[in-house]
Amino acid sequence: MKHYFLGLLLFLSTAQINAQTVKVNQDRLTKLIQELSTFGKNAKGGSDRVAYSSHDIEARKFVVAKMKELELEVKIDFAGNIIGKKDGLNPQLNPIAFGSHIDEVPNGGDYDGPVGSMAALEVIYALRESKTVTQHPLQIIIFANEEGGVVGSRAMAGQLSAEALTMKSSSGLTQAEGIKALGGDPTRILEVKKAKGDYAAFLELHIEQGGNLVSDQVQIGVVEGIVAIEWWQFTFKGIANHAGTTPMNMRKNPLLPAAKFILAVDETVKSYKGAQVGTVGKIEAFPGAGNVIPGEVTLNLELRDLSSEKIWKIYEELEAKAKEYAEESNTELSIVHQEVASKPALADPIIQKTIENSAKELGLSTMYLPSGAGHDAQEMARIAPIGMIFIPSREGISHSPEEFSSPKDIANGANVLLQTILQLDKELP
Amino acid sequence: MKHYFLGLLLFLSTAQINAQTVKVNQDRLTKLIQELSTFGKNAKGGSDRVAYSSHDIEARKFVVAKMKELELEVKIDFAGNIIGKKDGLNPQLNPIAFGSHIDEVPNGGDYDGPVGSMAALEVIYALRESKTVTQHPLQIIIFANEEGGVVGSRAMAGQLSAEALTMKSSSGLTQAEGIKALGGDPTRILEVKKAKGDYAAFLELHIEQGGNLVSDQVQIGVVEGIVAIEWWQFTFKGIANHAGTTPMNMRKNPLLPAAKFILAVDETVKSYKGAQVGTVGKIEAFPGAGNVIPGEVTLNLELRDLSSEKIWKIYEELEAKAKEYAEESNTELSIVHQEVASKPALADPIIQKTIENSAKELGLSTMYLPSGAGHDAQEMARIAPIGMIFIPSREGISHSPEEFSSPKDIANGANVLLQTILQLDKELP
Repeated sequence: MKHYFLGLLLFLSTAQINAQTVKVNQDRLTKLIQELSTFGKNAKGGSDRVAYSSHDIEARKFVVAKMKELELEVKIDFAGNIIGKKDGLNPQLNPIAFGSHIDEVPNGGDYDGPVGSMAALEVIYALRESKTVTQHPLQIIIFANEEGGVVGSRAMAGQLSAEALTMKSSSGLTQAEGIKALGGDPTRILEVKKAKGDYAAFLELHIEQGGNLVSDQVQIGVVEGIVAIEWWQFTFKGIANHAGTTPMNMRKNPLLPAAKFILAVDETVKSYKGAQVGTVGKIEAFPGAGNVIPGEVTLNLELRDLSSEKIWKIYEELEAKAKEYAEESNTELSIVHQEVASKPALADPIIQKTIENSAKELGLSTMYLPSGAGHDAQEMARIAPIGMIFIPSREGISHSPEEFSSPKDIANGANVLLQTILQLDKELP
Repeated sequence: MKHYFLGLLLFLSTAQINAQTVKVNQDRLTKLIQELSTFGKNAKGGSDRVAYSSHDIEARKFVVAKMKELELEVKIDFAGNIIGKKDGLNPQLNPIAFGSHIDEVPNGGDYDGPVGSMAALEVIYALRESKTVTQHPLQIIIFANEEGGVVGSRAMAGQLSAEALTMKSSSGLTQAEGIKALGGDPTRILEVKKAKGDYAAFLELHIEQGGNLVSDQVQIGVVEGIVAIEWWQFTFKGIANHAGTTPMNMRKNPLLPAAKFILAVDETVKSYKGAQVGTVGKIEAFPGAGNVIPGEVTLNLELRDLSSEKIWKIYEELEAKAKEYAEESNTELSIVHQEVASKPALADPIIQKTIENSAKELGLSTMYLPSGAGHDAQEMARIAPIGMIFIPSREGISHSPEEFSSPKDIANGANVLLQTILQLDKELP
C-alpha cells in the first residue's frame, strides 16, 4: 500500500500536488473586497466609483500597489487597462489571463466586478504562499470602464470605434478624456488590440446578477456563454378618437393588439426549452389621455439567448402573431430592428468542463447556465478561449447598493478560479 | 268631404296649422353658420374661437346683432351667457329655452356648438316669417365657455364653484377674468342660478361627435341623456429587474396583468347590452427601459354610460378580474377612483318622444342614443326637463378642423328643433 502511494506521488507533477492543497485565504480575500469598497462609498451605502472618476483612479492605485506587493510586472495599456504579469516556467507559452473590473454603475454595489478582480489578486497570493509556479505566464487584467460599455476589453478585441471615444461617460468625461485620466493614450488605442492566440485563455469570476444559483441552492455556475441580444420596436397604429362618443365596435384601438402581443411574448418565450428571455420593458400610448382612445402604441421587445438562431426563431413566431393581432383589430403594424449584441460569446467547452471538474473536486455543487448580462469576457471571446465562473448573488440583485455575495461563496469562486488556472496550465498547449 | 275638412281646420289652433307648414330656411341657416365661422378662422382652416378670446367676443357681437334684428330682448347674464327673449301669448308660462355655444376648442371646427346656436336664431326667423306666436315665452341661450368646462350652464345650474373661477382658460385668462371680458360679473355669479321650474324645457341641437348616425344612415338622433363618467387609475406593482439575468419564471412582471386587464376591459364592456363605453387611454411602465423588466405599470380606466348602476356593475366585474390577474402574476394591485361626472343627465321622456314624433312627421329617420360627450344640456338637466337632438357628423369627427355636417342635415335638425318647440308649446303646462 505504502509503496503504491509513494509511486503515485512521484507520478504527479509539483503543480498537481499543489493543485490538491493550494487554497485561497478567505479572510484576506474578504478584506481585499472591503478595502476596495471604501473608494467612492457614498452616504447611502452605495458605490460612486464610476469609471474615470477620482474614486476609480484612487481604487486603481490601490490595485496597482497590491500587484506590486505581489511582485507582478504592472503595465497600464493605452486603453487604461491595468495588466499585472507573472512569469511562468515556460516563457514560450502564451499567458493565461484572468480578471474583471473595479468600476461601478452610478450608486452601484461592492461585488459586481470587485469579486473577480480581488479574487485574481488572491489567486496570486495563494500561488506565492504555496510556492506554486505555473508553466504558463499569468496575467491579471483589470479592465477600464466595464460598466460604461466594456471599453477596455473592446479595445483589446479591436472593437472600439473612434466614434465611441467621443461619447460621454457617467463621469462627465468623454471616453477619450477618461482613458487619458487613467494613464492610457486614446490616440494609440489601436495598438491595444490583441491577436487571436495571444492569450492561451481568459477567465472571469463574477457574481451571477440573476437568481438561478440562489433559487437552486447551487454554489458554482459554469457559464456557457454570454447571450446575444436583439431589440425591436413595435408600433401598432389605429385611430385616436373621443372615448365618449366612439362606440366600442367602431374603434381602431392599437392598445388591444399591443396587449395581446405582451402576453404572447411571455407565453412564446416560455414555450421553448432553455434559458432564453424575452422582455417588453417599455410601452407608450399616444396621445395618452384618459378620455382619448389611443391612436398609436409603441413597445420594445428584447430577446436574449446563447443561440442567435433560437432568438430569430422566437422572433419570427412573435412577428407572425403581432401581424395577426394587428389585422384582427384593424390596426397597422410596423417594426424596427435595432442591433445590440447580435452574436453570442460562447465559453470554450474545454474550459467549461475544467471549471466544472475543479468545482466538483472542491466538493462544490455546479450548474451550467448562460450569462444574460454582458461582461468583459464577451469581448475577450473574440480573441481567446474564455470561461466564466458565477457565484450566487443575493436575490439576484446587482447594480445596486443591495448587491451582496457571502465571503464563503466568494472564496468558493476564487478557489474554483485558482484550480481552473492550474488545470488549464496542464491541459492547454 | 269638403265640409268635414273645413270643420277639422276650424278645430285646429293657429299654432297647429303653422306647425304643419313652418319650416326653417336652409340657405339662411347655412349662411349664418358660414358667417359665424369667419370669427377666428386660422390659416389651417381651423377655428381659434376659444372662449373669452377676441374672436369669441367679436362673434358674440354678431350673435347679439342678429338677436336684435329678430327683435329679441337681449341680456348678458352675470356668467356671460347671452340670452335672447321673445314673449309668448301667455306671460304666466315659464319659457321654453333652446340654444348651444359658439366657443370652440383650440384649432376646433365650425359645427360643434354653432349648429345649435345658429339653428336657434333660424327658428326665430322662421317663426317670425310665418307669424307664428307660441303660448310660452321663448329664450335663446348662447352659453359662455362650453368647451372650457360648461362654465355658463354650470353657473345657471348653480354648480360653478369659487375655485373654478380662479382656473385658467384656454384664452390665458382665468374664468373670472374671461367672464368679465364677456360683460359678465364674476362677483355676482350666484345670482345667475335658476330654480327648478324656471324653464318649462331646455332643448339643444348638436352634432353627434360619434359615428352612430352616419354608420346607420339615420338623419336624427333622439338623445336619451348625457352619460355619467367615472375614472380609475390602476397600478400593478411587481419588481423591476435585469431583463437579461432574470429567468422568465422568476419575474414579477406587472405588465402581464396590465395586458390581461386591457383585453378584459374591451371584452367586458362589450359583453353588456347597450351603448356603454370603456377605455384605457393611458399606460405607463416604470422605469420604462428596453432592458429592464418593469417594476410598476399604471393605466387609466374610463367608463361611460347613461346608467351609473351599470357603470359600477361593469367596474366591479373588472376590479375582480384585475385582482385575479394580479394574484396570478405575483404582483400587487392598487386602485384610485376619480370622480368626473358621477351622475348621468337624462333627457325628459316626453321631450324625447316629442323629438321623435316631430322628426317622423318631417319624414326623417330617427334613432335613440346616448350622448357620450358632455354638453350644456347636461347642466341644464339639473334645473329643467331637457331634450337633445343630434345630427350626423362626418366620420364622427369633432373638435377638429375636419368636423363637418351637411347643410341638409343641419336644416333637418333645425326643423326638428322648431317642430319640437311648437309641439312642447302645446303639450307643456
